[in-house]
Amino acid sequence: MSNSKGHTLDRQDATADVPIRDVLTQYETALNGGDSGASLNLYADDAVLMTPNRATLIGKQAILEAYQGFAKLIAFNVSFEVQSILQMGQDWAYARTTSRGTTANRNTREITNEANQELFILKRDGSQRWQIAVYSFSSTNPLP
Amino acid sequence: MSNSKGHTLDRQDATADVPIRDVLTQYETALNGGDSGASLNLYADDAVLMTPNRATLIGKQAILEAYQGFAKLIAFNVSFEVQSILQMGQDWAYARTTSRGTTANRNTREITNEANQELFILKRDGSQRWQIAVYSFSSTNPLP
Repeated sequence: MSNSKGHTLDRQDATADVPIRDVLTQYETALNGGDSGASLNLYADDAVLMTPNRATLIGKQAILEAYQGFAKLIAFNVSFEVQSILQMGQDWAYARTTSRGTTANRNTREITNEANQELFILKRDGSQRWQIAVYSFSSTNPLP
Repeated sequence: MSNSKGHTLDRQDATADVPIRDVLTQYETALNGGDSGASLNLYADDAVLMTPNRATLIGKQAILEAYQGFAKLIAFNVSFEVQSILQMGQDWAYARTTSRGTTANRNTREITNEANQELFILKRDGSQRWQIAVYSFSSTNPLP
């Protein structure tokens, strides 16, 4: 299957694969470190974050406030596994991941087992850097 | 901002906008009608469905079984509002929507107020038809 550039998707995937995996690894590190600034730095300026149980967050200021809120309340200890990366166009790709681990409530010390599925849409900016454009995720744990 | 085809994104958006809105309208109709076959028909063969509180569903058989399970248990009465549509490449686009309405449990008759955010990645197949490639959503209702 060829795309508009005439490359096969496989070849495209190989090109985007390493830098996108690197973004996802940086995301995991930032999340587990409670480093809201580092998390935010992975997002595009006009990014969209769809986090469960709140309205869609649009733009870096709203996204930063969400990460600051999470970091204040929760200590993350999760690891992401890349399920697939597909380049959809010259400067667009998506990545599907799953994540597992625990979160600890900083106030109550309660530990929660986490299992999630994530969909990242990434875009490449003028400096050839892949950034998160849209991110949606949900728990894969059964309802309690 | 031009893409690999040299079209502006605005022009691309205008091209994809109508057929993608049509897919989303068909999806709403199928969901509210409990018509699992019609829902399934909107998905690509290798589609991925990320529905909260279960493992990622991959492929039409798994997706069909999920819709049949939903339709058996739940009557949907929801309406989708398109928030944005962006074409990412020749044959790829994403759509963000929100949805509101109610679901009724067919067994208990319990009515639940629904508010969700949805991210659809769509791709155009050889017959120029846009189909759902990846779909992830979550509730925007606050945690109980």
